[in-house]
Amino acid sequence: MCIFCRIIDGSLGATIRWQNEMWIAIDDIHPKAKTHVLLVSKTHIESLEQAMDQALLESGLSTVQMVARTLGLVEAGYKTVINTGRGAGQIVDHLHIHLLSGNIGNV
Amino acid sequence: MCIFCRIIDGSLGATIRWQNEMWIAIDDIHPKAKTHVLLVSKTHIESLEQAMDQALLESGLSTVQMVARTLGLVEAGYKTVINTGRGAGQIVDHLHIHLLSGNIGNV
Repeated sequence: MCIFCRIIDGSLGATIRWQNEMWIAIDDIHPKAKTHVLLVSKTHIESLEQAMDQALLESGLSTVQMVARTLGLVEAGYKTVINTGRGAGQIVDHLHIHLLSGNIGNV
Repeated sequence: MCIFCRIIDGSLGATIRWQNEMWIAIDDIHPKAKTHVLLVSKTHIESLEQAMDQALLESGLSTVQMVARTLGLVEAGYKTVINTGRGAGQIVDHLHIHLLSGNIGNV
């Protein structure tokens, strides 16, 4: 079972910032910004390329928008990053969206 | 009128890679990767924070997926980036999504 699936099923701890039925927002354990949250799909999907669930895809950007507002990132600004495939820097093969704000580094 | 609105209305040239009724994909004039395309909303919306059009938000990730496939970026992998606000590196105040593939630099 992948690291994100273990967090979702509760067998691995994480700092959960927000969740709904499709997405969970957790702190990145190696933060590259003052705030660095990962929006992780609750179902195991390898990457954006593999995502076929239309409801999940459709909810992505509005979820980013909502989580950014909930965490108070709008005033400082925030960067949204999705790495798809090893060649683009994807490390965990489970769909996740990076949200970074404040002293933003590279992901 | 902003630079992206001028491209959309045809008064400014650009290399158009793909388009539908909501989004247009153009080459970034200062590419930070072998392929660096911007998915620009056809309506003038300042940023992801300002986006209220649910159909546009809902179409975002599936459009990224489709454009990446159309441009043949899947095998090499691709990075999707949205900068929201000056503090996150947004330069043009018109909603756009970066798609980068091959020798990816920072945006």
